[in-house]
Amino acid sequence: MILSELISIKDAFKIMDKTQKVKDCEIIPLEDSHLRVLGEDIHSYHDSPPFDKSAMDGYALIAKDTFGASTDTPKTLNIIEEIGAGDFSEKEISDNEAIRIATGAPIPKGADAVLMEEFTASNGDKIEIHTQVPPSENIVPQGEDIKKGKKILVKGTILKPSEIGLIASAGYAKIKVYKKPKVKLLITGNELVNPSKTIEKAQIINSNKYLISSMIRSIGGIVDTEHLRDDADLVKIAILKASKEFDIVLTTGGTAISKGDVIVDVIDSITDVLFHGVGVRPGRPIAYAEVENTPIFMLSGYPIAAISQFDIFIRRYIFKMQSLNYDPTIVKRESKVKIPSDLGRTDYVRAFTDDKYIIRASNKGSGIIHSMVQSNSYLIIDDNSEGIEKGDMSNIIFFKSMLLY
Amino acid sequence: MILSELISIKDAFKIMDKTQKVKDCEIIPLEDSHLRVLGEDIHSYHDSPPFDKSAMDGYALIAKDTFGASTDTPKTLNIIEEIGAGDFSEKEISDNEAIRIATGAPIPKGADAVLMEEFTASNGDKIEIHTQVPPSENIVPQGEDIKKGKKILVKGTILKPSEIGLIASAGYAKIKVYKKPKVKLLITGNELVNPSKTIEKAQIINSNKYLISSMIRSIGGIVDTEHLRDDADLVKIAILKASKEFDIVLTTGGTAISKGDVIVDVIDSITDVLFHGVGVRPGRPIAYAEVENTPIFMLSGYPIAAISQFDIFIRRYIFKMQSLNYDPTIVKRESKVKIPSDLGRTDYVRAFTDDKYIIRASNKGSGIIHSMVQSNSYLIIDDNSEGIEKGDMSNIIFFKSMLLY
Repeated sequence: MILSELISIKDAFKIMDKTQKVKDCEIIPLEDSHLRVLGEDIHSYHDSPPFDKSAMDGYALIAKDTFGASTDTPKTLNIIEEIGAGDFSEKEISDNEAIRIATGAPIPKGADAVLMEEFTASNGDKIEIHTQVPPSENIVPQGEDIKKGKKILVKGTILKPSEIGLIASAGYAKIKVYKKPKVKLLITGNELVNPSKTIEKAQIINSNKYLISSMIRSIGGIVDTEHLRDDADLVKIAILKASKEFDIVLTTGGTAISKGDVIVDVIDSITDVLFHGVGVRPGRPIAYAEVENTPIFMLSGYPIAAISQFDIFIRRYIFKMQSLNYDPTIVKRESKVKIPSDLGRTDYVRAFTDDKYIIRASNKGSGIIHSMVQSNSYLIIDDNSEGIEKGDMSNIIFFKSMLLY
Repeated sequence: MILSELISIKDAFKIMDKTQKVKDCEIIPLEDSHLRVLGEDIHSYHDSPPFDKSAMDGYALIAKDTFGASTDTPKTLNIIEEIGAGDFSEKEISDNEAIRIATGAPIPKGADAVLMEEFTASNGDKIEIHTQVPPSENIVPQGEDIKKGKKILVKGTILKPSEIGLIASAGYAKIKVYKKPKVKLLITGNELVNPSKTIEKAQIINSNKYLISSMIRSIGGIVDTEHLRDDADLVKIAILKASKEFDIVLTTGGTAISKGDVIVDVIDSITDVLFHGVGVRPGRPIAYAEVENTPIFMLSGYPIAAISQFDIFIRRYIFKMQSLNYDPTIVKRESKVKIPSDLGRTDYVRAFTDDKYIIRASNKGSGIIHSMVQSNSYLIIDDNSEGIEKGDMSNIIFFKSMLLY
């Protein structure tokens, strides 16, 4: 099969969006929610703190009883009780009385301030106070942190430590999150072998298995991988099986025009290929279809092409499966390099970019995993540009802005 | 027990470093290595690619045979063989011969260039070629990606997709990584209850269990949590048990001066408390000791204090356990807020900061989880400063610079 007319990235996105799937949600214990995606808005069941509490270890008292107190002119108050964290007192404080109170304990009736222990000298059932405090000193008012009923987090939030702590304070021990997308990664290529010290002539190590699985995990997916020979019947069986058992199927290899390449032909024999060939480099031969209502993305066999295809198309699709937008930040940087490009093709050039400049860019085409590790960004050359010159302000997407977490 | 003389953060780090533990390594399958920490330098067993290969689908040929070819003046070559990906040819190309070749296939003997299929018209066992190519066109030379024997990654690297793909290409199916630190989180406080819609007076929801477990996971730790009442005997038993079974023990609560606070006293009855009280706010009462040669960090019960203590002390310790440096980037920003501070105390003020300005800062002390979610950075006020004024250029650490991944 020959590549169809190249379509633009934007048109490819339109086709993907028409068929975009979104995962169902599930209820899980909050302690298992680290880096899951929230599937509901969270409203607090409680004020937090649930009562006026002491912010310090010290003495709850009436502020005006301290006015004028100093080291030279101490005042003396009667200690009528002690409250530890978790205790509370039924007693009400009257003039010249104090209750010893622990950080976090509720402020007793009558008290309007807490004096830090450091500024007192205890003497049996009395304390000498050596400084004065204004009303509400060292008191954390009820609901300061969170007001009961308030919406504190929205659906689609990625749950990190602070959010998880906040949800706990709001009164939730279980929450609704999006199920993790289940991804089948089918890798084709007779030439591919597992990593080892020695490989035969014309063999290539199957690095995609490791590279792409890790990319899938890094965006919240669960991945199952399988290596297939370039055999149309085997590929067809594997794709039909995977399309029933998984949320999304990714294949690598078999998208270009060559003897050993079979996947697009196999899909074409099952259903319509919705697009094959996008005006992007690297990654032009990417193809997309649906089998059994399951999205199938056909990626290149070459790691670098596959990575670009993943970054541009697959991240977006899998983010949206979890109700997340995929909208990597584009920033402008001055280029220190000259890079030619063709009209009608968007280039994603791996580059090393700092706060000011695009310092290095590699445009050697496929296969250069190594430069991925040494790059930190894509230099994007739009399809209406014939390239960039040294000194041009150009569009950059930092890899870190494409990440989920 | 009274707080010891406050020590500086720097002195606390010195004490921690004297007793710093580092985890052993283990060998794991490469496919399980996502986000693990590399425990060895990686040298490549192979050139990558392992042979000169074609970067395109087309025809391997001798460049000079194409010189002068154009659409108007095509040249004709004899096709002597086809090579798919994974195949290779024993044949050697002579003048005016070509071998049809798939992307990734090895360049046959005699050929010095590949002409893209698009610029040819095949005609049985002959092709018409419509353009000329220079020598080495569309050939990816052996070892372009990685040279055999080259050190490609160093011990202490966090393994992300590109690194994992690179290690596979280098020939490793298994690798050495640091074992994950096993952390016991002991949470004390009679007042603490599990999250629920209704709570009793003077009860507080145990948000630390969820918050701190998630923070531990976010830096590569395995966490086991337990909630204890403020009972010295129970606490002592739990700490002695945990110190035998875990790499590091974190406690929350029981570090300040109050009736219900027991942990530091219990530790003091077992061994020397190496420090208790650091000149930092929030988080001053943090304490550190070793029991059974296991580090014990005693954190505050208040989430916000515990978070600062975690960010300043625990991240550092757990990073170093995995041979990682913890050195969050400090950047300067202009403050739009005025914040007082005390000499001899370093403030970590939760702030919202953008590219230019410190826009908001909250300094209300303990308990304000909510502001954590709304903040993105710490504004740091050094212990030799009495605070910052509006317009001051001040030190900022963005939360994201403290993360492991």
